[in-house]
Amino acid sequence: MDVVVEPGIGWMELNEYLAPYGLFFPLDPGPGATIGGMCGTRCSGSLAVRYGTMRDNVINLKAVLADGEVVKTASRARKSAAGYDLTRLMIGSEGTLGVITEVTLRLQKIPEHSIVAMCNFPTIKDAADVAIAAMLSGIQVSRVELLDEVQVKAINLANGKDLPEFPTLMFELIGTEAYTREQTHIVQKIASEHNGSDFVFAEDKEAKKELWKIRKEALYACLAMAPNCEAMTTDVCVPLSHLAELISKSKQELDASPLLCTVIAHAGDGNFHTVILFNPEDEGQRKEAERLNNFMVHAALSMEGTCTGEHGVGTGKLKYLEKELGTANLRTMRKIKAALDPNGIMNPGKLIPPHVCL
Amino acid sequence: MDVVVEPGIGWMELNEYLAPYGLFFPLDPGPGATIGGMCGTRCSGSLAVRYGTMRDNVINLKAVLADGEVVKTASRARKSAAGYDLTRLMIGSEGTLGVITEVTLRLQKIPEHSIVAMCNFPTIKDAADVAIAAMLSGIQVSRVELLDEVQVKAINLANGKDLPEFPTLMFELIGTEAYTREQTHIVQKIASEHNGSDFVFAEDKEAKKELWKIRKEALYACLAMAPNCEAMTTDVCVPLSHLAELISKSKQELDASPLLCTVIAHAGDGNFHTVILFNPEDEGQRKEAERLNNFMVHAALSMEGTCTGEHGVGTGKLKYLEKELGTANLRTMRKIKAALDPNGIMNPGKLIPPHVCL
Repeated sequence: MDVVVEPGIGWMELNEYLAPYGLFFPLDPGPGATIGGMCGTRCSGSLAVRYGTMRDNVINLKAVLADGEVVKTASRARKSAAGYDLTRLMIGSEGTLGVITEVTLRLQKIPEHSIVAMCNFPTIKDAADVAIAAMLSGIQVSRVELLDEVQVKAINLANGKDLPEFPTLMFELIGTEAYTREQTHIVQKIASEHNGSDFVFAEDKEAKKELWKIRKEALYACLAMAPNCEAMTTDVCVPLSHLAELISKSKQELDASPLLCTVIAHAGDGNFHTVILFNPEDEGQRKEAERLNNFMVHAALSMEGTCTGEHGVGTGKLKYLEKELGTANLRTMRKIKAALDPNGIMNPGKLIPPHVCL
Repeated sequence: MDVVVEPGIGWMELNEYLAPYGLFFPLDPGPGATIGGMCGTRCSGSLAVRYGTMRDNVINLKAVLADGEVVKTASRARKSAAGYDLTRLMIGSEGTLGVITEVTLRLQKIPEHSIVAMCNFPTIKDAADVAIAAMLSGIQVSRVELLDEVQVKAINLANGKDLPEFPTLMFELIGTEAYTREQTHIVQKIASEHNGSDFVFAEDKEAKKELWKIRKEALYACLAMAPNCEAMTTDVCVPLSHLAELISKSKQELDASPLLCTVIAHAGDGNFHTVILFNPEDEGQRKEAERLNNFMVHAALSMEGTCTGEHGVGTGKLKYLEKELGTANLRTMRKIKAALDPNGIMNPGKLIPPHVCL
């Protein structure tokens, strides 16, 4: 139940290869992502609520360090207490500690059965509350995705659909046939207790594929709605108990903005994205997009959250790290960077704010 | 669904506190373990097959580093892509990088229902094969524990039981009532296809508690069987596909030894322990115990496994690390240690073999 790959393979390509074995690699970020990039950013996606992130699904990896040494980070055992966790140190380091050349991934059995359920809510807070209640119920959801009414509208426009344009939750429930149905009833009951309506679910393979396809292509639907715009995608994540509050607060600010904005959340993880559409040639619009992102990051940080749930730091989020992690944390990161890459040749300028010194 | 604790609290004490909230911390090592020690050794236990190890269940932690800096490793979000994974770097570092002073743990809902099933097999290989087949079936076992016939005998003697003295598997299945029963039938079917007999299961709370109690106290049962002996507990872990082969090979060697040895495996993770009983005043017996341990570690390493699945390195397993991880890995560990603790004041002599230099 593991596989050894080179970093350039895409997760979709890998899953095509694995399907005949009844196995899959349970992460599903944007369609073009490769395993190496996914390691670099500690990536996740909509299945993380059930299977975890790259942190949880890499058994070991090989990397070339700045001094040319080739390090294998761990054995092939699925758990080990032998030494520092160099695997996890490399995952999320954004290429600043070494170049990943080989990855051993943990695989999962393709579920016997699955059901995709959808439900609408009068407010986005109701939808977020249901996502939280579903997590607290102890059932094994494999996906809980939240879309706001603007995002549903974009999907309708791009795909010629007529989904009700309300805040919407999409669930995926997996397991045996009987158990997926039992879970679907539990979710339906929770939704009905929080003003949910139009509860529908699909068991047919093609119907389920179609539903996830529109979710997966949500970003493209946004861009189709505003053809001359660029999209700024935000990525905050907070403890689950703060999600409803953060989404409500953000939604107020987004609705009051002149820019077109949609909300898509991996609600079971407390992670939510907004797609902010702006004209790249209009400096005022760019600044407004940045203001909105900044607003949400600071709101998330005030709720003990993070400026990036799964997209990484790069250079754009360097400015938030000190508030999120504190100076002692950043100095520790700098010490590790200096120890492994004293000449600063690995992806220079990324991940650690330049003002943080040894 | 998280809790902030100090490192001195025991996991059992914590779970007593959490029970009224319907929540629990899903790791169950030996009864006396504390959260700080569990972080230090990257500990796990029988529930790791379902919930993961300490690596997967700590959201963040606070540590005092060698230079007196107090580092908070991450935000309280359950996932984040913000910076190096200092949480995972501290977990499993055995106190060599800092002193942990606070830990935020991820919690789980107490399952609505559970069933404990037991089954006997003519050979230990049959039992291991069933554990592997159960994992490949995709059902959500929360525990798969394998005991050999010697361990069952020790349990019978210590507890006045009359369990059939054969290689035995114990399963725990969790979820809704209907789903736990469905899973139990799937496990029963798999067992019957691999020569399983005497399949029994318990749903009654007291009966289940009694069954796990005898498993938890297996080590004490061994010591009761040989009152003047000490126990050496081994801890190898291999990829699941090698488990049956490794257990068979080890069992042959153990059976041929004059020492009394029992096998207890967390079979779903590929992790297995033997308890080797020896008279501490008899140098020959001590050497024989060490020879057996050495045999199993080298067998595990030849199968891409680890010398320690969950107990840690300390000083006893320093000698195996180079073979398991390679010199480049150990040098990288040494560089990190030197960067964060240049004077070597944090738990000196542990984890990194002394001959590994910068």
